[in-house]
Amino acid sequence: MEKMSVGVIGATGMVGQNYLRLLKDHPWFEVTYVAASPRSAGKTYAEAVAGRWVTDEDIPSAVAGLIVGDAGNIEEAEGKCELVFSAVDMDKQAVRELEEAYAGNDIPVISNNSAHRWTEDVPMFIPEINPHHTDIIPFQRQNRGWNKGLIAVKPNCSLQSYLPAVYPLMAAGYAVESIFVATLQGVSGAGYPGPASIDMIDNIVPFIGGEEKKTEQEPWKILGSIADGKLVNDDSITIAAHCNRVAVTDGHTACVSLQFKAQKPSLDEIVAIWRAFEGEPQQLDLPSAPKPCIIYREEQDRPQPRKDRDAGKAMAISVGRLRECPLFDIRFVALSHNTVRGAAGGAILSAELLKAKGYL
Amino acid sequence: MEKMSVGVIGATGMVGQNYLRLLKDHPWFEVTYVAASPRSAGKTYAEAVAGRWVTDEDIPSAVAGLIVGDAGNIEEAEGKCELVFSAVDMDKQAVRELEEAYAGNDIPVISNNSAHRWTEDVPMFIPEINPHHTDIIPFQRQNRGWNKGLIAVKPNCSLQSYLPAVYPLMAAGYAVESIFVATLQGVSGAGYPGPASIDMIDNIVPFIGGEEKKTEQEPWKILGSIADGKLVNDDSITIAAHCNRVAVTDGHTACVSLQFKAQKPSLDEIVAIWRAFEGEPQQLDLPSAPKPCIIYREEQDRPQPRKDRDAGKAMAISVGRLRECPLFDIRFVALSHNTVRGAAGGAILSAELLKAKGYL
Amino acid sequence: MEKMSVGVIGATGMVGQNYLRLLKDHPWFEVTYVAASPRSAGKTYAEAVAGRWVTDEDIPSAVAGLIVGDAGNIEEAEGKCELVFSAVDMDKQAVRELEEAYAGNDIPVISNNSAHRWTEDVPMFIPEINPHHTDIIPFQRQNRGWNKGLIAVKPNCSLQSYLPAVYPLMAAGYAVESIFVATLQGVSGAGYPGPASIDMIDNIVPFIGGEEKKTEQEPWKILGSIADGKLVNDDSITIAAHCNRVAVTDGHTACVSLQFKAQKPSLDEIVAIWRAFEGEPQQLDLPSAPKPCIIYREEQDRPQPRKDRDAGKAMAISVGRLRECPLFDIRFVALSHNTVRGAAGGAILSAELLKAKGYL
Amino acid sequence: MEKMSVGVIGATGMVGQNYLRLLKDHPWFEVTYVAASPRSAGKTYAEAVAGRWVTDEDIPSAVAGLIVGDAGNIEEAEGKCELVFSAVDMDKQAVRELEEAYAGNDIPVISNNSAHRWTEDVPMFIPEINPHHTDIIPFQRQNRGWNKGLIAVKPNCSLQSYLPAVYPLMAAGYAVESIFVATLQGVSGAGYPGPASIDMIDNIVPFIGGEEKKTEQEPWKILGSIADGKLVNDDSITIAAHCNRVAVTDGHTACVSLQFKAQKPSLDEIVAIWRAFEGEPQQLDLPSAPKPCIIYREEQDRPQPRKDRDAGKAMAISVGRLRECPLFDIRFVALSHNTVRGAAGGAILSAELLKAKGYL
Repeated sequence: MEKMSVGVIGATGMVGQNYLRLLKDHPWFEVTYVAASPRSAGKTYAEAVAGRWVTDEDIPSAVAGLIVGDAGNIEEAEGKCELVFSAVDMDKQAVRELEEAYAGNDIPVISNNSAHRWTEDVPMFIPEINPHHTDIIPFQRQNRGWNKGLIAVKPNCSLQSYLPAVYPLMAAGYAVESIFVATLQGVSGAGYPGPASIDMIDNIVPFIGGEEKKTEQEPWKILGSIADGKLVNDDSITIAAHCNRVAVTDGHTACVSLQFKAQKPSLDEIVAIWRAFEGEPQQLDLPSAPKPCIIYREEQDRPQPRKDRDAGKAMAISVGRLRECPLFDIRFVALSHNTVRGAAGGAILSAELLKAKGYL
Repeated sequence: MEKMSVGVIGATGMVGQNYLRLLKDHPWFEVTYVAASPRSAGKTYAEAVAGRWVTDEDIPSAVAGLIVGDAGNIEEAEGKCELVFSAVDMDKQAVRELEEAYAGNDIPVISNNSAHRWTEDVPMFIPEINPHHTDIIPFQRQNRGWNKGLIAVKPNCSLQSYLPAVYPLMAAGYAVESIFVATLQGVSGAGYPGPASIDMIDNIVPFIGGEEKKTEQEPWKILGSIADGKLVNDDSITIAAHCNRVAVTDGHTACVSLQFKAQKPSLDEIVAIWRAFEGEPQQLDLPSAPKPCIIYREEQDRPQPRKDRDAGKAMAISVGRLRECPLFDIRFVALSHNTVRGAAGGAILSAELLKAKGYL
Repeated sequence: MEKMSVGVIGATGMVGQNYLRLLKDHPWFEVTYVAASPRSAGKTYAEAVAGRWVTDEDIPSAVAGLIVGDAGNIEEAEGKCELVFSAVDMDKQAVRELEEAYAGNDIPVISNNSAHRWTEDVPMFIPEINPHHTDIIPFQRQNRGWNKGLIAVKPNCSLQSYLPAVYPLMAAGYAVESIFVATLQGVSGAGYPGPASIDMIDNIVPFIGGEEKKTEQEPWKILGSIADGKLVNDDSITIAAHCNRVAVTDGHTACVSLQFKAQKPSLDEIVAIWRAFEGEPQQLDLPSAPKPCIIYREEQDRPQPRKDRDAGKAMAISVGRLRECPLFDIRFVALSHNTVRGAAGGAILSAELLKAKGYL
Repeated sequence: MEKMSVGVIGATGMVGQNYLRLLKDHPWFEVTYVAASPRSAGKTYAEAVAGRWVTDEDIPSAVAGLIVGDAGNIEEAEGKCELVFSAVDMDKQAVRELEEAYAGNDIPVISNNSAHRWTEDVPMFIPEINPHHTDIIPFQRQNRGWNKGLIAVKPNCSLQSYLPAVYPLMAAGYAVESIFVATLQGVSGAGYPGPASIDMIDNIVPFIGGEEKKTEQEPWKILGSIADGKLVNDDSITIAAHCNRVAVTDGHTACVSLQFKAQKPSLDEIVAIWRAFEGEPQQLDLPSAPKPCIIYREEQDRPQPRKDRDAGKAMAISVGRLRECPLFDIRFVALSHNTVRGAAGGAILSAELLKAKGYL
């Protein structure tokens, strides 16, 4: 199979760098275009990120020499790539317009930005949970008069630490009523430079701007359905989140208490459901789909971010400490890698899903 | 006023060291005796802790030259002190017997050890919450045939991060039904050496052995009452705890969601209640009583362990982020210093309370 | 004694905050004026630093309500203060001119900024080492036509970890030829926000821009003498520095190997020299002078930043591990608090020296 | 090629675990035997390490089910493996005797333990530096009447951060006279549990017991020659070391100043020498030999432990910041992974060297 040519816009920032790292040697996609602000345009990628390449691995050699385009000038991307991953960092209205412009020019957009998360005809994917939301794409194209273009987004990274562990229980027939979740989130979730080191040494910060609302509400869209050509939220689950920043590089950990609506599975059954869970990405054998998707750890003190974040090439969800809860039915700890599963990796998996289903 | 002579048994460990640090220049108590295991007995205190003095401040000069006694030999303490703070670290049955032997020899015991926490006639103090539990002392003495002796204990450090913030609301007439609490606890809570550094660098550990049960159940005794000469638990509050160890030296932070039973105060009223709160320690002007007891921080990202743990000489409770909760009535963040308020400092405040009320 | 009224210009940044914290309850100085950029001017100080007060202690209540002046408008300071501590952060030429303008308006300036460090008639004080450099002030005033005004600066914080431990040996007659120094510097040395937390978690950064040159050359001026109305450098000591940033909040640690020129004291004699050392600040009993100035730790693993940085109200120099060196004569570890001794505290001590000697 | 069967003795500790992790899927060696103390003997390996598997990766499935032998009972190893890697942790005399007993029973021993480091007929390998020390093996066998048995050891981990960067300059004809080295060493170098977390949070410890002497003297043996059937030290290089423990999991960083004896290469030439350097492991294409062996980083702030320790599968040496030194000729920063290159990985590379040269 010939590889599909892809671009990364907003390629010089931390999220963009992560895309490039994860797309290195990808079996389906090949990075042929990078774009950033006019300040970087015209330089080689290596020149453009000199002194601000923050990723632990080195710049992939295949992109180091690419000439950086101006992300705002869509014509520069034409003919150079068949898809863009968007990691642009601008005000929301500008992002919405820019991403729509790419899509309108027949270049599908998979975005890390939050600008289009609540747009009614834009799907927000956790590919194991709502792969059927690809069905909105024909409506999206029809609404907007797009031909090959489309826009799809990924949700906030905090969700990905716990929602993929909750969903299999729902899929097995156990409706969920309420979730308490307290997160301990790694600093990379704030981008670069993110929190000052003096605020994180011998400290935690029990606040992340806007994060609790996203953690509580974005699941409603992801768990929703399509009706009348629109994504309709399912807000039947009530979620209360306490979000904390801790001195961890990568990895978001979630302490979850969960109340079922009616039927309640046994603890053994829950572990069995998790271990057997396969979403459409696993069934389609997508390149970035972790197998297994959910890893249940028997140790009493796992999952832990440094030890478990890289499981399944940093795409698996690690879960442990399943036990009864004095207030709700069950409680457990769940964890995923925020900049891979929760960001660039999740977006790449979404692109793989769209490609496998013929939308790209 | 002449100072009361006090001893510290288990004086060479981390908790014992904290007692000595906090009792330095105490206006009521003077350390005249230290005891530890037979291995240390006979040495000067400075010799006994050489190479294992882990407290940041230096050994108080007044105790450096004291000859260490054998904690197991009660006769050595006789005549040397009128009270002992117990930080012994042995199996629970041995601790119970040793502490009873001191009390039986007319030496009151204020203990950090958990051995007597569930003994029916032993009070477990958070002095601002249950100062009236001193009333159990006459029954305790009568039950056991003790004259001047007594035993009082302090609860687990994790409680002290959130229960002192919950109690004033109850005292103001707002009964509490349920509490969700997720804690982020400093490593000093595990004693010395405590967690290995390799387990805490770039990591959190979402498990602390036995901690969640203590966090959920010890409040029942503290909030209980005295009936028929016994402490009777009040388990009308249901608490669910998720306890985590984080890379913080000192300071336990608690994320709390709280449901009232019936009447619910406004957010403004809650802040007002906290700010006005005085317990008996404040009213009696006890030397270690923080004034104010509860500090409400207006900043959106406080309290934080490094910035707030030392408030009120590390005896105050810092609270912040009070807001509505999607599931329960309210949520907030609370914090206290685990080795001062939550351990040696809390025990010293208990001793001050007992002394002020004539039990010592 | 009536307190002298002082101002802090550049009062809203991290260094300015430190000045205000350290000047709280100062016996000689009272903060009566604060100034910052035009953006802050006109607000109360509390308003101006809302959301960017980064110091662990709260804003001193005495300054919270002061109206912030425009640091660039010297007339605003007139009549409000008799001295300013400068923590302005601008390009060097602008700083030089601004500080000279204050001094020209009869307002002496004690500065944290590096702009005037190499100006020939401006003294750079480590008050225990070169208190006699106050003698340059009459020349400075004469050169510039100033009456009551003057400018004095403090050197880079990295020096203060090791030079105050080296100087007493020189003062005792043991000339020093060469120094190797490797520093492990806390992140607060970089101001706020300073290094990104993701760069410091599970990491060190073996580079600090410009720091090695300052560490190697500023001692030449401090150890120099006055000739023909100018400060003349003494570059007879050769210093080679390796500067590293480590995950420590406050405290710079220096590993030092030292070669004497001729005579070499014994290890015991060196410890005795350190313990006996008194500089003019100690002899004059200046309020911020630590007594002792140098603390020699006998433990094999001290000094350590968290345990020793606060010694002597964070103004003392802690030294340990004195031993023979296979290459040079001796080696040892020295440590001081970079934002107190190495910055605002050192500057305040310089002001005290100048005042005690009649220059203010 | 059929794989050689190997055992790991002392397999349950941290170093033993590292051997098992690194030997997983090794092309030449297959782990067929594990042994530990009598307490573990008879259990499966997974049972024996339950609760004390500290390595981030999981137990390799191929060894989880192996029955643990008693390391002290050499007969148990016979027929089960053709070589053992020794990670036993006992007193030195006992280690010496045990390792000799294995070798005497025709089981070659490659050891992490320091017991035999100074034994005259036991080579201490950094395989890129002294591969010719394999020539001592025939003498060793002759001295001791061994047939197939042999003992080889690896040096202290601290050396490996800087000596492999120094050696290529010597090999290129630039004799070295003196080295100053200050190390910043990761906590895993101390084994498990190693330093207490409370000692490493917001702190550094400028002392590691015995480390400086090893850092200064072990190079003399490695750089030595064979004469009269013995390894003769070359102590013509004088090294002065300052060893520090920092809050880094893995990775030892060294700040080096270096004086040449006579001829001095230019900075450009040095970088060229490093980049071109190949040792015998590279020339023999040994499976664990990193290619390149030495990576010179152009960035001004590299190498850094978290970013560079894993280079070359954690076997490469990363070097940077080469510059003139005010006291010596040059200075630079060097870094390697202490538990891979500096411990188990280095030992495996030594075994590969011995096998390639026909000694196994």
